[in-house]
Amino acid sequence: MAAGKTFHWAGEYEVNMNNRRTLATELGVFETFTPNLPDVYRRTPFVLLANIAPALQHHVLDQMRRPRFVAADTMDLWLNIALDDLLKLLPRIDAFVLNDSEARQLAQEDNVIAAAKKIHRLGPKYVIVKKGEHGALLSSPDGMFISPAFPLHRVVDPTGAGDSFVGGLMGYLAASKGPLAANLKRGMIYGNAVASFCCEGFGLTRTTRVTRDAIDQRVRHLERMLRF
Amino acid sequence: MAAGKTFHWAGEYEVNMNNRRTLATELGVFETFTPNLPDVYRRTPFVLLANIAPALQHHVLDQMRRPRFVAADTMDLWLNIALDDLLKLLPRIDAFVLNDSEARQLAQEDNVIAAAKKIHRLGPKYVIVKKGEHGALLSSPDGMFISPAFPLHRVVDPTGAGDSFVGGLMGYLAASKGPLAANLKRGMIYGNAVASFCCEGFGLTRTTRVTRDAIDQRVRHLERMLRF
Repeated sequence: MAAGKTFHWAGEYEVNMNNRRTLATELGVFETFTPNLPDVYRRTPFVLLANIAPALQHHVLDQMRRPRFVAADTMDLWLNIALDDLLKLLPRIDAFVLNDSEARQLAQEDNVIAAAKKIHRLGPKYVIVKKGEHGALLSSPDGMFISPAFPLHRVVDPTGAGDSFVGGLMGYLAASKGPLAANLKRGMIYGNAVASFCCEGFGLTRTTRVTRDAIDQRVRHLERMLRF
Repeated sequence: MAAGKTFHWAGEYEVNMNNRRTLATELGVFETFTPNLPDVYRRTPFVLLANIAPALQHHVLDQMRRPRFVAADTMDLWLNIALDDLLKLLPRIDAFVLNDSEARQLAQEDNVIAAAKKIHRLGPKYVIVKKGEHGALLSSPDGMFISPAFPLHRVVDPTGAGDSFVGGLMGYLAASKGPLAANLKRGMIYGNAVASFCCEGFGLTRTTRVTRDAIDQRVRHLERMLRF
């Protein structure tokens, strides 16, 4: 653990490889990180404010020029130590992405569906709740969309699966034409497909070998598994 | 608790209303129950051997005349005290219905998808794993089908939701023409719709007021929530 060098998260997964416990988070360089974005980055239409201090998410968003769609991810740490900053961010974004236990904590509500509804009132039009092996929910003004996880026979390491999910989702959105509402749903399926590869290897060992064909194949597989 | 009179299960749900712990089970009359089925019952084509001692499930199945489709439900108690009888039942049935923790216990496998595959090898062509608020999985020779639960803003009492699920599924199968594989998938969605009503009231208070129209409406709602 190179303190002051890199962001370091230490945690553990329960034996079911689904529930995560944070043991320690060391921010390292992120503690004083204030990125100055190159001009070309500032014109990005689809912006993902990945999981980092909400103050930094604000700082990045302040530099963006009229983005078309802004999503933000978070984690329990920011709910605990930077809630005010996070609450100020929520009205500025289109989609808020968080996991089920974080949704429960933020909304102070045990029922995840009720929690998602409460989170809408804090600002975001779209609330995306990640549920690990149970997939993810999209709550939107059009209603609810359910995207099950790709069923895996073996989960090697789920670390980074949530980031892979939102990366796959945002990549799909950025590459797609047509109405956002439809793209968001299909993007959730893409996110789950990408996340499934992440879980199949330790760290990035599996993700770095994934092809677009392999992702498309899992998306078609998920389509078949949901058709009735 | 009228000992010797009725089957009595005492348990509790965790605060998330999803994980169940059995505290005690009193079999009551079921301890010595050996039902003799009326002739008209013996000719039922769709048979559900609901959750009871596997020896009794054998006893009922022995009386059936060439049923078209036999499903059996179970619970952790029988895995603990009547595993041999249960293992002898599995090759005699078409579909085995159990919850995720029971599937893990029976297959001695933490991953639910891998557990379902192992359970096929014990006999049943169809393995249905109930996952509470996360819906249910159907594993079949054609592959996997995922049926998410109907999203509820408030769960009053999930007791009986599993029985409602399999009741809705079997009712749909018995009332439907056409190929079994397709009916099973749609039946899973009907099962989840019926189970959602069960969770909305204490005991049977909500279930007894449900109409077929209300069930069909939730099935259509689930269809919309899965379409992308």
